This record gives sequence, C-alpha cells and structure tokens, in this order.
Amino acid sequence: MCPLEFLPGSIHQDDEPFVANSNHKAIESLFLDLDKDKSGYIKKRQVSNYLRQKGFSREDQRFTEVFHFLDNPQTSPEIDLKQFTKIVEGNFTFKKAVNGNLIIPNFTSFIKDLKSIFQDSRSNVSGQVAEYIPQLKRVDPDQFGLSICSIDGQRFGCGDNEVPLCIQSLCKPINYCMVLEDLGDEVVHRYVGHEPSGKSYNELTLTDHGIPHNPMVNAGGIMCCSLLQPKLSESDRFDHVINMWKKLSGGSWVGFNNAVYLSERKSADRNFALGYFMREKNAFPPDTELIRVLEFYFQCCSIQTTVNSLSIVAATLANRGVCPITCDKILDAHTVKNCLSLMSSCGMYNYSGEFAFRIGLPAKSGVSGAIMIVIPNIMGICVWSPRLDHNGNSVRGLEFCKRLVQLYNFHNYDTMIIGSSSMTDVNSE
Amino acid sequence: MCPLEFLPGSIHQDDEPFVANSNHKAIESLFLDLDKDKSGYIKKRQVSNYLRQKGFSREDQRFTEVFHFLDNPQTSPEIDLKQFTKIVEGNFTFKKAVNGNLIIPNFTSFIKDLKSIFQDSRSNVSGQVAEYIPQLKRVDPDQFGLSICSIDGQRFGCGDNEVPLCIQSLCKPINYCMVLEDLGDEVVHRYVGHEPSGKSYNELTLTDHGIPHNPMVNAGGIMCCSLLQPKLSESDRFDHVINMWKKLSGGSWVGFNNAVYLSERKSADRNFALGYFMREKNAFPPDTELIRVLEFYFQCCSIQTTVNSLSIVAATLANRGVCPITCDKILDAHTVKNCLSLMSSCGMYNYSGEFAFRIGLPAKSGVSGAIMIVIPNIMGICVWSPRLDHNGNSVRGLEFCKRLVQLYNFHNYDTMIIGSSSMTDVNSE
Amino acid sequence: MCPLEFLPGSIHQDDEPFVANSNHKAIESLFLDLDKDKSGYIKKRQVSNYLRQKGFSREDQRFTEVFHFLDNPQTSPEIDLKQFTKIVEGNFTFKKAVNGNLIIPNFTSFIKDLKSIFQDSRSNVSGQVAEYIPQLKRVDPDQFGLSICSIDGQRFGCGDNEVPLCIQSLCKPINYCMVLEDLGDEVVHRYVGHEPSGKSYNELTLTDHGIPHNPMVNAGGIMCCSLLQPKLSESDRFDHVINMWKKLSGGSWVGFNNAVYLSERKSADRNFALGYFMREKNAFPPDTELIRVLEFYFQCCSIQTTVNSLSIVAATLANRGVCPITCDKILDAHTVKNCLSLMSSCGMYNYSGEFAFRIGLPAKSGVSGAIMIVIPNIMGICVWSPRLDHNGNSVRGLEFCKRLVQLYNFHNYDTMIIGSSSMTDVNSE
Amino acid sequence: MCPLEFLPGSIHQDDEPFVANSNHKAIESLFLDLDKDKSGYIKKRQVSNYLRQKGFSREDQRFTEVFHFLDNPQTSPEIDLKQFTKIVEGNFTFKKAVNGNLIIPNFTSFIKDLKSIFQDSRSNVSGQVAEYIPQLKRVDPDQFGLSICSIDGQRFGCGDNEVPLCIQSLCKPINYCMVLEDLGDEVVHRYVGHEPSGKSYNELTLTDHGIPHNPMVNAGGIMCCSLLQPKLSESDRFDHVINMWKKLSGGSWVGFNNAVYLSERKSADRNFALGYFMREKNAFPPDTELIRVLEFYFQCCSIQTTVNSLSIVAATLANRGVCPITCDKILDAHTVKNCLSLMSSCGMYNYSGEFAFRIGLPAKSGVSGAIMIVIPNIMGICVWSPRLDHNGNSVRGLEFCKRLVQLYNFHNYDTMIIGSSSMTDVNSE
Repeated sequence: MCPLEFLPGSIHQDDEPFVANSNHKAIESLFLDLDKDKSGYIKKRQVSNYLRQKGFSREDQRFTEVFHFLDNPQTSPEIDLKQFTKIVEGNFTFKKAVNGNLIIPNFTSFIKDLKSIFQDSRSNVSGQVAEYIPQLKRVDPDQFGLSICSIDGQRFGCGDNEVPLCIQSLCKPINYCMVLEDLGDEVVHRYVGHEPSGKSYNELTLTDHGIPHNPMVNAGGIMCCSLLQPKLSESDRFDHVINMWKKLSGGSWVGFNNAVYLSERKSADRNFALGYFMREKNAFPPDTELIRVLEFYFQCCSIQTTVNSLSIVAATLANRGVCPITCDKILDAHTVKNCLSLMSSCGMYNYSGEFAFRIGLPAKSGVSGAIMIVIPNIMGICVWSPRLDHNGNSVRGLEFCKRLVQLYNFHNYDTMIIGSSSMTDVNSE
Repeated sequence: MCPLEFLPGSIHQDDEPFVANSNHKAIESLFLDLDKDKSGYIKKRQVSNYLRQKGFSREDQRFTEVFHFLDNPQTSPEIDLKQFTKIVEGNFTFKKAVNGNLIIPNFTSFIKDLKSIFQDSRSNVSGQVAEYIPQLKRVDPDQFGLSICSIDGQRFGCGDNEVPLCIQSLCKPINYCMVLEDLGDEVVHRYVGHEPSGKSYNELTLTDHGIPHNPMVNAGGIMCCSLLQPKLSESDRFDHVINMWKKLSGGSWVGFNNAVYLSERKSADRNFALGYFMREKNAFPPDTELIRVLEFYFQCCSIQTTVNSLSIVAATLANRGVCPITCDKILDAHTVKNCLSLMSSCGMYNYSGEFAFRIGLPAKSGVSGAIMIVIPNIMGICVWSPRLDHNGNSVRGLEFCKRLVQLYNFHNYDTMIIGSSSMTDVNSE
Repeated sequence: MCPLEFLPGSIHQDDEPFVANSNHKAIESLFLDLDKDKSGYIKKRQVSNYLRQKGFSREDQRFTEVFHFLDNPQTSPEIDLKQFTKIVEGNFTFKKAVNGNLIIPNFTSFIKDLKSIFQDSRSNVSGQVAEYIPQLKRVDPDQFGLSICSIDGQRFGCGDNEVPLCIQSLCKPINYCMVLEDLGDEVVHRYVGHEPSGKSYNELTLTDHGIPHNPMVNAGGIMCCSLLQPKLSESDRFDHVINMWKKLSGGSWVGFNNAVYLSERKSADRNFALGYFMREKNAFPPDTELIRVLEFYFQCCSIQTTVNSLSIVAATLANRGVCPITCDKILDAHTVKNCLSLMSSCGMYNYSGEFAFRIGLPAKSGVSGAIMIVIPNIMGICVWSPRLDHNGNSVRGLEFCKRLVQLYNFHNYDTMIIGSSSMTDVNSE
Repeated sequence: MCPLEFLPGSIHQDDEPFVANSNHKAIESLFLDLDKDKSGYIKKRQVSNYLRQKGFSREDQRFTEVFHFLDNPQTSPEIDLKQFTKIVEGNFTFKKAVNGNLIIPNFTSFIKDLKSIFQDSRSNVSGQVAEYIPQLKRVDPDQFGLSICSIDGQRFGCGDNEVPLCIQSLCKPINYCMVLEDLGDEVVHRYVGHEPSGKSYNELTLTDHGIPHNPMVNAGGIMCCSLLQPKLSESDRFDHVINMWKKLSGGSWVGFNNAVYLSERKSADRNFALGYFMREKNAFPPDTELIRVLEFYFQCCSIQTTVNSLSIVAATLANRGVCPITCDKILDAHTVKNCLSLMSSCGMYNYSGEFAFRIGLPAKSGVSGAIMIVIPNIMGICVWSPRLDHNGNSVRGLEFCKRLVQLYNFHNYDTMIIGSSSMTDVNSE
C-alpha cells in the first residue's frame, strides 16, 4: 500500500504526536531486540537483514538510500538508537514495518509456508507442454518459478523466477485495462461482453449479440487490440503497450520474443478464423484493419518478462492500480475493479468456473504456463511451470493455488469463514 | 452479527473495564442528547423511537423485554440515566447500537436512501409477468416489495413486503446448502457442477461429465432434490425443508401454495424432460425415484413466504449461517461460502455474468419476481416485483440492484475503489 | 408386379392372339427343354423344380393349386405338352415366368450371387449387440438372416430368416405411411419435418420450427404415434397397426414381445425426455396424452416378425404399395413415394448421408440389427444380424448392402452408369 | 443421348435392314403428313420448322449442314421424298426425331407447358436480392430466365436466358467432378464428407472427422479448390476450369466477372474464417497455400455464363457426362453418379432436405439466383431469377421447380406412382 492518503511532506509532521510516540516506542523496542548484548549499538548488517526478512531488498528503489548507507563499508559497521531512529523515520515503509503495519507483518513465516507449498507442488509432473509452436514446445518442461509482491512491495521469489517468458494470454487483462482507460467501460462493452463463454477459450463462438463473450478469451483479446489506440502508428502503439507493462511491473525489464511472434503469426489459423468471423459479423469498430489488429495481438502475446516482474504487475492490480514498488498510480481503481471482476469469472479458460469456486481469486492463465493471481488489497502472485492440463492451465500452477487457499484465507468468500476457520490470516502477526 | 465470540455470561463481566467505560460514556452521551430540556429525565417513547430508528421493533425477540418495559403504560413514562443505563447494559444489541458498533450505524440515513431508490425503481413498468401457470399469470403485476435485514438484525421493509409469495427458484440455494451439510461438497459435486452453463436456466444440457452445470439451474435444482434426505418419507422430507426455511427466517411464518404446486407439476414438461434426460445419462444417485424427486422439487418451489422473511434468510447467509434475529447457527460457514460463491456466478439465470460484473453480489432470482441478495457480512435484501425481463429476472428488482450499487460500495470488487470513490460506505457513521 | 392393369377375367381372352402365340411358343420351348429324352412327357417334379428355381414355393398362395396338382402322388408322375400348357396358361405368374417377363428372369443366378455375398458378409464379426435392455443384450450375436422378395413375389431366404425378432425402429416408416394415409402429407408434415437431422437419432433436438426433423428419428416416431388414430381405444389402435403389418407381409405371422415392451418402457428415459421436451414446445396435436403415446410407441417397437416377413413388407413398398404375394393394394403409391423418399435420406441413423451416397437405396435400420431395404420396382430385402456399429446399424447388414451394390446396379444413380458399367442388371436374362 | 454405342460409320450400314425399313416407313409417313396438297413436294421451310419444333436450331452444330441446305435461298425451295429421305438418313438425330425416339418426343407440347409454368412463376415477386457485394445488389431483381436442354440436345429458352451471370455456388458440383476425375472418390472423400450438414451453407462447422460436410457447402467448395490441380500455375489452373465449363456447355461462351471477383475477395470474411478454421484443424492436404486456394475459389465463383449454357451443363450431367450438343464425353459416368447423388441431398442449402422430398431431383443453387436442375437421363434445366428466399434459393426458381414436378413425373420416386398417377410422362408421345 502506498501512502496515497498523505501528502509526502506530511509524514514527519510534528503535529502527529500519537503516531510519533507509537513510532518511537516501536523503534526503540526493535532496537533493543536487535541489541542482544545490550551494547547500545547494533550492526548495520542486522538492520539490512531485518529489512530482507520483511521482503525488501537493495533493488527496491524505495530502499536504495537505506541500503546504500547500511552496506557502505566506509562507514562504521554499527549504529546507535539515534541513528537507527533517523533511518527508520526517514523511510515511510521502514516505519510501517517497524510498527507492524505491513500488510504481511510476519513475512518470514509466510515465506516459509510459500516455500513448502512450492516444493510440494513441484512433485506434480503431469500435463503436457503446449506444442502448437516450436518455441513453446522446445521449452524445458520442468521449469518452475514463483514470485510474490505484497501491496507494500514486500517481495519474494524462488525457482525459475528470473527466466524470460512470453506473456501470451496474460496480455489480455492488461489490454482490457488499457482500452477501459481510453474509452470507458460503456464503450468497450459495446464490443466485448462480460459473460463466461461456457466454451473453450479459442472456440469459434460469439454471444447472441455477435460480440466476444469477454476480454479474456481469444476473440475478446483480439477485439481489445482493435480498440487499443487504433490511430497510433504500429510502432507507437506497441511502444504504448510495452510502456504500460514497464510501469505495471515497477520499471522491470520488458522484452519481446520475435521468434515467438513469427511463429504465433504463422500458426494462428484459429485466430485468423476468429478475426474473419468477427469481421463478417460486423463485430469490430469501423475502419478496423483486421490483419494489423491480429499482428498487434500476436505482438502483445510475444512480450517477454519474468515471473518476478509479473508478480509486481499482479500486485499493482491488487493495489488498486498503484504500483507498490514505485507508488505510481498506473491504472484507475475503477478499471482495476472491472478487470478483476472478469479475471475472477473468466480468466482460467474452461476451468474458470471451478477456479472461482475452489480458489476464489482473480487470476489469468497463459499458454506458456504462467498464472498471474491477484489477492485484492494484499498481494500479487505469479507462478509458472510449462506443463499444462487439458484446459490449458499450468498443472503445477493450479496445484500451487489449491494448496495456497487450503492454508490461507484468500478465497473471495473466505470472509464467510473467518473466525470459524482453521485457516491462516496473512494479515495477523 | 451475533455475539459468537463471547460467552453469554461474559458480556457484563466486570473485568472489561475499558469496554465498560466506553459504554458508559456513550450511554451518557446519548442520554444527554435525548434529554433536550436537561431535566435529567427522558421519555420512554424517545427510547423506543431511538430503537426503531436503528432498525429494531417490538417484534424482534431480542427486544421483547425492552419494548415491554418501554411501552408499559402502567409505569412512569420517563426514566433517568441510571434506569437508561441499566436497560442498555442489559441488552447486547442495544449496547452495540449506543456504542456506534452496529454494522449500519447510521440506519436512518441508509433507509432514506433505500426508500428513494425503491421509489425510483417503481417507475420501471417494463417486462411481463410469468405466464406458464395460471397462478403466476393472475398475480397483480404492479406489486413491489422491499425488505432488508442487517447482520445485526436491523430491519426495514416497505411496499408489498408482507404479501405471501412462492419462493420458486429461491429454493435452489437453500436445498444446495442442505445437501452440502448432509453430504459434504466433495460428494455433492460429484452430482452437480460449479460452472456457469452459458445457457438458459432450463436448457436441456449437461456438462461434459453428464451432470448439471450448477445447483442454480433447473437440472441442478432437481439433482439437489434427489440428494436431499432421500431416505426420509415424503412428508418428513418436506417438513425438513420447511423447518430449515423457518429457522433461516428467524421463525417467520412459512406456508405452502398447493394450487401452485399442482399447476407446476402439470406444466412441468421441461422439468420432466430434464429429469428423464439426466436419468438416461445415469446422472442421479442409485435408487433415485425420478417422479418422487420431481414432485419434491415442485413442492419446494411452492413454499410460500414473504419479502420480509426472505430478507432474513438472505441476512442469515450474509451472517455466515447464523440467523441475526435468533442468533442461532443454522448453516455451517463453509456451506454458506460455497453457496454464495455459486450464487455470485450462477444465480441470475442468463444475466448471471453481467450481474456479477455490474452488481457484484451473490443473489438468486425466482420466476415469481423475487430476488434475494446477500451482502456478505453486512446484510440480506429481498426485493420483489412480478414483471420479468427476457432473462426471467424481475425488472424492478434489477433496477433496484443497479441503483443500489451506484450509491453504495457493495460490489464484490468495490474494495478496489475504496478511498478513490464517491460511493457511500454503509459501515461508516 | 401384380396384374393390376388387367381385369382378372381378361387374362385368357381369345382376342389376345399375339400374346397367346408368344406364350405357346415359349411354353413349347420350355417343354422341349425339359423333355430331355424326347419322350413327349416331362416329370411333374421337373415342373415344380422349375418353379422353385424361379423363386416360387408351395407356400405361395398363388401357386397352391399348381403345387397341389404337381405334388399329388395319386396322379401320374408325368404330363404331356397339352397338360403342361394348361397349367401354365391357368396361372398368370407361371405364364410370366415362362415368357421371361419376371422382374428377375434369371433368379437362379441372382440367388447364387446373393448366397455368395451373404457368406462373405458373415465373416465380419465386428460390432456390439445393443445392450440397453436385457432382451436385446441376451440375443445370440452371431445370428444372421437374409430374405428377399421380388415385386413378382419371387422369394429366397437363408440363414436365420425365420427367427422371430422385434421390429424396433422399422415401425417408423410404416407408422409414417399409416398417418400419411389417414391425414395426408400436408397435415402430417405440420407435425414432423423432412430434413436429415445431422444429429444422432435420439438426440434432444427439434427443427427451428420446433418439430422433429423427420419421421425416422425417435422424436418423429413418437410424433407419428401421436397422430395415428388417436381416437381409437388403445387396443383397437394397436390391432390396427398389427393388421397393417400382416397385410404388408402378405398375411405372415405377426407377434408381440411383451418382455421387450416392458423393458423398453422401463428403459425409455431418453424417449420420455423427448416426449416431454416436445410437449413443452407444443409440438404435439391438441389433446395428445403423452404417456399413452409413448406406451403406444414402445408397443409398436415390440412387434415381432421374421426376416422373411420383413422382406415381403419391403417388397410391398418396392411394388408401390401392392403386396406382391397377395396382389392386394395396401398403401397408396403417393404414400410409398413419400416414405421411400425419407427412408433414402434419413433411414440409417447417422450413416444416412453416407448410405445414400454409397448404397443409394431407401432403407430403414433397427436396433435389433435388422435392415429393411427397398429396391424400387424390383424387390424388397431384409437382412438381420444383431451386432451393431457405432451408428447403430447392423455391421453385417451394411456389409451385405455394400457388396450387393458393388455387384448389382441397384444404386439410385446407377441409371447414370448403365452401359458404361461392369455391373450386373438383375432385370436382364 | 449420343450414339455412343455405334461406331460413327455404322449408322448407314446396309446390314441393318429392319431399322432401315422402320426409318423408311416413318420418313415417308412424315413426308406425307407435311405434303398437305399431295404434290409430291414439301417446302424446305416446313422441314426446318419441323426441326425447330423438335428443339433443334441452326446454332446446333449437329444440324449446321442440314440448316445450311434448308435455308439456302439459291436452291429450290422444295424437295421430294427422295431428297427428304437422304437428309433425314444423313443425320442421326434427325432420324431419331422422325422415328419418334427423341427423349422428349412431343417437344411442342412440353414447351407449351414449360412456358405456362414459367409465366405462372413470374408472379411470385417475394424475396430479396443478395446484398453482400455491390455487384449482386445492383442487379435488376425482376430478371427471370429459363432454359432446358434434353439429352438429345433438344433446346428451349425464354426470358432472360442470354444475360451473363456469375455461376457462384454452381462452381461447386463441377469442381467436385473435376477432383473426382483427378483423384478418385476414395481420396477426395478423405478431405470432404457426403453428409447433409444440417446447418446453413456457410456455417463454421466441420464433421466429427474435422472435414467439411460435403462438397456443396462453402467449406467443401474451398476444400475441392485445394484439391484441384494444386501443382498447376494459378493461370493454368483457372484455364483448366474455364475449359471444363466450355466443354460442359457444348462450347458456349464462358466469361469472367473481375468486378465480382474483387468484391467477393473483399467481402469474404466468412470464407476466410472457414479457410483458417479448416487449416487449424489440419483439414487441407499438405502444402496447401490457403490464400491461393481462397482466391482460386472466388475466381471460380466469378465465372460468367448464361442460363442457356447452364442448361447444357445440366444436360451433360443428365446425360452421364456426355455433352448432348457435341457428343463429347466430358466426365466419367461414375463421377456424374457421385455428383448427382450429393446434389440431390445437399445442393439447395438449408432447403436441401425439403427439396429432396418435394422436388426429388439433383439440383444446385447459387446466390446469383440461378438453379441448375438435372433430370437424369432426360434433360438439364437452368432457371434464374435474382430474388432469394431466406435459405438463399431463388424464389421464382423454386416456384418453377414445384410447379414442374406437379405436372411432370420427374421426382426421383415418381417411379413409384407411374400408372396410378395423373402426372404427365415427358417420354411418351
């Protein structure tokens, strides 16, 4: 969560005595905790370890200065309470951590659980890698990566979380957000519905009104591409999308896999069929150039990023459109609301209904084996492993999701079982 | 909300000084407020008015004693602070109200908004009364009733909220809950799916596994009837259902419309077709007697109740299975979780997808024109008007829902727009 | 072919000198042929053998008298030309045979081919016996019977051609003929279409007009039952059908398998579903009593007859509605035209299209493994073997049909390849 | 019918005394008929009139010489019996006419009936011109043309029978014939089925085996184009098709409408969708270049010809692949058999089933409003009028067909009602 409610300058204002007091108490208490030998000094290394345990690293730009100081070998390796207080007070997120106000206060324990779930899920080696293009077929099927990012920017990743992968269908929710911001939901939903299709994701069907069922199926993904800045040049339009991905992932690297693009375009018979079918039904806006739209769609699918970055994207959605890492407002909250609503009912292909029932979280699956999961107001998750089940969802990804909601009360309707449940609440220390 | 967390005896325990203090302050403050002429006395009528404004009435069994005292003409019409404190302290819900802890603290203002929405919705006279049986066709199409019940048992009703009506499809979520409690969700969902069907509610289709898509379509409703206490005699089984409805509605009157039952049974060609179709697919449990099951299903549809009572049923679901009026635990929280999950994706016939997107609340619609809406952890609503749109949902009922979520942040994903929204939060004073 | 064009009395009229002359020459020529030792006498046994070779037997009522004389041991075993001439001249069909005017002049050679095809088809033992009722499941799967009857009443049967079997779906074309005769095709086709359904025979689908696709699928069969003499009592109505079958099969025995009826009725979930589905769509005529109609339909399916008898039924259809054995006009030629038209496009379940293409003959298949094939103006065939392919057609029956049209030019469009073909023409000596 | 059975030289052979005698009698009898004033001479004009009445004209190359002589103003206007005999004897078809052996002996009377049916059909002005491309939309909707050509080359045309029109879907049966001749039916039907589709002609559906239902729907038409001489260059391949049309229509003019081609290509979204859909299903042969195939298909649809020419094409099909005008064998009889079989079940779009039932003739309909009807072994018919019904068939064309089979026994199963019918037999004088 970013300090949106406060003006940046207000954080250290003197007229917040109560908070200040509370801070001081908590800071002192933490200092005494770390100062095991009661020397009046703690090691800077202890402080950076504390931050890492809370999910923050040197790469986090919010902590650049802090880590710069802590890791500086040229200054004293120890600090006293006054110095410590100054550091904490000077950093909004640090202060939040010290006060126990992070969305995941007990991050260490949560990560321990995550690792355990991750390991348990690894043993599921069923499923098949997607084979419709050589680039997907050639991938090492055993890769498995996980990353999470809380709305306070607490991060954790393991496994193949830094391997570049193509976003494929994960482009759909983001493109949908972009057209919502451009045109408003009233206009967008003249061209694409908001109903689960009851059919396979690439089925040649439209609603009774002759439009795609929702933005999360292929037909809807193509439609959103036709709505996305149609007046920009092809290169500017693609840059526009790439920039959005960069912003959503807190400035992470975002690439493009041209081999995948060329293969996708070549193997895209079903998508061409869908495109022509929709054009024949006059489903597109006037002046749509179908081939250009399809190529744009394949380009979007061929954007490359990593599991780590995708968890930040998911966290931005979880955080109402504000990137937890940069605190930049990327998407309007209404846009995110609509997107999560449709991800929760239509994001997991033919398994969407059962996913909504069993997992109860907005999520989007891609044919590369990535699943992006949003836990509203808590965190974003990305889990990736290439082997898919017959619905086209990552086998290990689903396994992970199932185990996660068994342990934590993240299901949309787990509000119903709070108190009467043995489930863990991530937001309690 | 009921005081489940507390042992009944603990409420007045002396070792809760802080709460007690807080109570005393709030009680005194309210007393001073009411004592406009600073006489040291307030009228008992003022107290009962206060309770009515908070949504409590003499019919509420939790306030029987309180109102008995307040309305007793044989005692003094005025009370002092000590008497007032004693009354408040002696009643858990009264104390909650005085402390501003009711789930809808500013009930008066909320009711004012509701009335306004209700009146605005009345002007929508489009749609057609269901005509497939004479009993539905004959109904006065202009009837319109609304009732709400908060999880603290705060109630309000207006319009035709006391007219007896048949529950029709509203029996489906409750029967589903009952079989979940009997058999567990693993067993139940061997016989009925959890996917939106993408088809009309009475369509002759089953999932690829040969079972009904979900418990909210006719096929699924029939299936749940086949699972519901199949070993009981017909009369005992029906009594069992009636008792559940009584308990869910806090002990309200629950009737049966035999004329509707006979008509339903006679006009049930589609349901007979569905039943035989499922039997042919071996969808039913072994030893299912199809005709008996269908007759039981028609009987469930013919149960009679009122808009007022249905709002309590909805409130029981909103309150995790505990009836807010009686504080009895009627359904397990896990049962309610599953039921709300499916109501939110499948409860509004063919409009379910759009309802989930636009309204974002678990709801169930019936052909009589009733819609039962659950706002989890806040309240239950029932709105009823016989004219239906082409999807079979009450026109005015939908109108009401749309206007409600425009004004209040009840949408499932309105958590996404809190803070950035102009919407009202019912839970803030 | 029956001598419909002639008045019975005209056959021996003296003022037909040309025909008479021709007869005399042919009779004398045959006599000389048989009289190998030029004794002026031939054995009566030789004459009866000749008739048997042409396809006529003692059981054929048209030859009762002739065989009575020939087989009489009390008269001389030999006859002279004058006696022979008298016998031939006294019997219209005998005369036709002698003159080489039978529709299958070289019957011996045709039967030789048939036997060979029959033996070759026997080796196909693939497929499965129908199993949905025990009576069908229990049948000896290896049974295999064949019978043919030409429009001149020339008959041949082999294998299990006298085993009683249930007609099942073979009731459909005959019931359709009966309602056509009662109501005319304009009225009948208000209730049932004339389009191949493109679906499985028992699929739950109706045309866009809400009626069954054609009278050869289950829905259409049920519909025809609803149209068939609805005002008769149940017993009279069934007698009416039984009598039709007796007449169509030249007075053969026609039975009823009550065990099959009871099983069919009990296992008829799909048919009940179809019935209720149609009733819900208002597809039936007013005042239709659905259960009565369905029971009547199951009764029709449970009628028992033999392969031999069914070949006569088929021959009656091939002979424009006139039974070749009795020369009675049973059905109007227009009725038969309509029936054959629909048998040719819809009679073989899902294989109908390919059957029309490859075999090109009107035919009707039943789940008992019988296929009734009509070669218009030539003959009727029945072939029966219980093992069915996945379309529900007898494997050996189809095998037989394929081999038959490879050898003989019976395909509807074989008129296209006459002259340019190596195929045999059954109608040339 | 062409004298295929005879060697050309054999016609006048002296050793056919019986035929010769018969000829002489018939020739003499006709001569005496024409020689009304018993002068021993008849006018050459009378002879050419006689031929015209039989359906032969100066344009018929078989009669070039005959008409050249008869119309030559430089010779005597009269001829005697000897000259007449020489003329008749010298021309196979003339001789056939004189002997009463033409397939339509009483041509005058038949034409009178045709004209009457044509006029009656004209009054039906319902329906709408196809509008999906401007070239079709712009056409004069009231145009109406009819032409017939018997298997003896007897011809008649009226109305707009010489207006150039695009063949559109009429290319399908001919392309199917061409691939059958190239590859054999076994290979062809690996790629395209022989089942009525039960769906609209341009529906996005394939059979369970993933191939088009039959060669007469769009998907099947595209598939046949992919099979048609795929190794030829684009221009050679198109020439190949044009040449086939020329040969089938007896050397008539065959053109190409480039404006229609360009429009079709531009408006072909559904066909592109079908093409990509099939490619995605691996329905095409290896190495198929989809765009080239589609363009070839649109080119075939844009071939231009006239109602007159189309009647000759139909007559060539009716005559087992031999063009009645040129006596050239264009297609193998087996090819024609297969083509007629599928035209009879699938040629009239969604009306195919009812057309087979009511009209009972192989036919193919095109979106330009042309219907090509084949009466096997009798004649070919083309009727054209642009207004279409909701199935896409010419309204007046269907009207004409219905009236024709009411009067003449052309229905496939009218063999069933010969003798018992009041219908006319075109083959009796």
